[in-house]
Amino acid sequence: MARIVMKFGGTSVANIERIRNVAERVKRETEAGNEVAVVVSAMAGTTDQLVAYTRSASVMHDAREYDTVVAAGEQITVGLLAITLQDMGIQARSWLGWQIPIHTNGAHGSARIERIDTEELEKRFKIGQVPVIAGFQGLGPDNRITTLGRGGSDTSAVAVAAALQADRCDIYTDVDGVYTTDPRIVPQARKLDKITYEEMLEMASLGAKVLQTRSVEMAMNHRVRVQVLSSFEDKPGTLVVDEDEIVEQQVVSGIAYARNEAKVTLMGVADKPGMASGIFMPLAEANINVDMIVQNVSADGLRTDLTFTVPEGDLERAVAVIEKARESFPFDRLNADKNVVKVSVIGVGMRSHAGVAATMFKALADKGINIQVISTSEIKISVLIGAEYTELAVRALHSAYGLDASVA
Amino acid sequence: MARIVMKFGGTSVANIERIRNVAERVKRETEAGNEVAVVVSAMAGTTDQLVAYTRSASVMHDAREYDTVVAAGEQITVGLLAITLQDMGIQARSWLGWQIPIHTNGAHGSARIERIDTEELEKRFKIGQVPVIAGFQGLGPDNRITTLGRGGSDTSAVAVAAALQADRCDIYTDVDGVYTTDPRIVPQARKLDKITYEEMLEMASLGAKVLQTRSVEMAMNHRVRVQVLSSFEDKPGTLVVDEDEIVEQQVVSGIAYARNEAKVTLMGVADKPGMASGIFMPLAEANINVDMIVQNVSADGLRTDLTFTVPEGDLERAVAVIEKARESFPFDRLNADKNVVKVSVIGVGMRSHAGVAATMFKALADKGINIQVISTSEIKISVLIGAEYTELAVRALHSAYGLDASVA
Repeated sequence: MARIVMKFGGTSVANIERIRNVAERVKRETEAGNEVAVVVSAMAGTTDQLVAYTRSASVMHDAREYDTVVAAGEQITVGLLAITLQDMGIQARSWLGWQIPIHTNGAHGSARIERIDTEELEKRFKIGQVPVIAGFQGLGPDNRITTLGRGGSDTSAVAVAAALQADRCDIYTDVDGVYTTDPRIVPQARKLDKITYEEMLEMASLGAKVLQTRSVEMAMNHRVRVQVLSSFEDKPGTLVVDEDEIVEQQVVSGIAYARNEAKVTLMGVADKPGMASGIFMPLAEANINVDMIVQNVSADGLRTDLTFTVPEGDLERAVAVIEKARESFPFDRLNADKNVVKVSVIGVGMRSHAGVAATMFKALADKGINIQVISTSEIKISVLIGAEYTELAVRALHSAYGLDASVA
Repeated sequence: MARIVMKFGGTSVANIERIRNVAERVKRETEAGNEVAVVVSAMAGTTDQLVAYTRSASVMHDAREYDTVVAAGEQITVGLLAITLQDMGIQARSWLGWQIPIHTNGAHGSARIERIDTEELEKRFKIGQVPVIAGFQGLGPDNRITTLGRGGSDTSAVAVAAALQADRCDIYTDVDGVYTTDPRIVPQARKLDKITYEEMLEMASLGAKVLQTRSVEMAMNHRVRVQVLSSFEDKPGTLVVDEDEIVEQQVVSGIAYARNEAKVTLMGVADKPGMASGIFMPLAEANINVDMIVQNVSADGLRTDLTFTVPEGDLERAVAVIEKARESFPFDRLNADKNVVKVSVIGVGMRSHAGVAATMFKALADKGINIQVISTSEIKISVLIGAEYTELAVRALHSAYGLDASVA
């Protein structure tokens, strides 16, 4: 007997028929003798509708009221799934964030889970009842509903799995696992059987969109075995696990890309101490996340160029912040460019392998692709290139690292 | 300064524009120096949609899960109204049933309010904050969401008004008050400035549909002054008050009618003790509400006819129940007739006035309308007639009691 947390996203519970399909899967796991807790998102479209309501009520809405409104989406799904399970003869009951409770901090709209009381849930397991838990929501210190931010149901599921010390957290979604790269770009992309937390984290934050980044962090911190799999097909997905569970580690596991980057170049910046912090502090204060940063050595020791990237949606704000800081930190010219893409190769294996970066740069050069910015971490190398080269670059890299080949 | 509870129904909060209209009204009351608490229903159509979901998930759904699902409707509206009020510069916050809490009994789906904790609300009044309270919902003894049954938001509003000892409970709806009769039938129908609780109770339960019956009962028991008025027009509505507040009481205040009645006649029933209870007990056990009952004196002392009415929607069930009881309580023949309407004249003044019934019977006889069944209470006389005479009868009675005349 295993204890499993099953999480179903919005498309998996989009209508009553699909909710019934979800219930069938839950039934199968319970009939296999497992203890099952279910975490669900709102029906696809519901959250968008509710968010649109709050926006049209007021652009500057109170985050506490926003949370009250949007949390209604998951409230609807848990009730409907509990009813459907009961209809199939499975004991089930719904649990809202405040009922368990799932305690969060008070950061309404993007709250963090602090503690989950499992006493009631453990009691229900003993009598064979399936708890159907509302994802995305919790109870703040002000006794009001909080939400965890978009995609937060993944985090709810992993947090519940950690609190219940579950053997596995199965994230059912509309893709059947994590691929070596986007199959829409590279048809030869392969589904990975296993991937490490660290790699998944890079994949998620680089735009692979399979799992919310925070849920992967939480899984890594609590060593929760996560499986990503399809709610529409019956086959195993991708297991996100500890590095030592993967016997034969590839040097590079996958190629990710992120289109929502924008590049800012400041030309003719005075090359003196404190210059960089004078620009990046105001951006940090404006809560703008700066990603890649490159500063060239200045030729004359007086003036230099500074390039960095920000999320595309923050570009206008970033430019405004910089123009405001210009007085104290002068520069000649600002260039902003949304027409860029960040392409990354990811793999824990590169820690112990040389030449991974060289292979990347050569593969891109062979295709005549100019690299604008480079940044690296222990397990990934990212480059910023012109957006028009996205497909070409991803295909070239997928091939260069031998990922096209079918698994032996 | 007065303390006012304002309640807005589903059509009044059907979209963001109407919610803004509601917020304007709330603003006006607060700017007039009043302490205001608001109670709202779900956006028109939302509850129907949610109820349909639960039905399609399972016909025999768990009432606790049903409550969880449908209560989401009011949760959405309170958040949106709070946001809109804040946008207009009014301090406001939403309150869900479980947050106040509004304690109910455990009868999920049709719970009764038992107690409302007002401590937090009173604190908010002191700092000038408008509480926006979710109608229709409460917290059961099982720590789960309960709902009060359709139209329950009226009851929520009156209960909140009673608990807060409000000076008035304004029920905003899509009609501008209580009329002497249905203006669609009698164009000369007049809006009543005041009506007594007892009369309103008869009007509500007889199908005037303005206020939920239970809310009127609760208002009467706690002596809450209720005003029914339009959320789309700016004019005073109808005050529902204690009898002694109405200086010049009309003998008859209004004419009501209810089309959803069905008549059952049992012919050739053995005329012996226990016969009636032998038929009505099984109906009561089947939870079928029997309204008007007439039993003729039997001519021969052996067999008699028995006529009664049941809600039209329960007719099939009622007939089945009676056929089942037939063995122990034989009769010759059963006639069922849906083609009937109950027309009633209502007025507390008739307690001290003779001839009210005679006027009614004469007015109907003058139009050639046959009375099938008669029932009376202290303040109303109801007759069952053929449905095709509805308009004719209502118009004749409205005129016979002098209600057509314009107010002096």
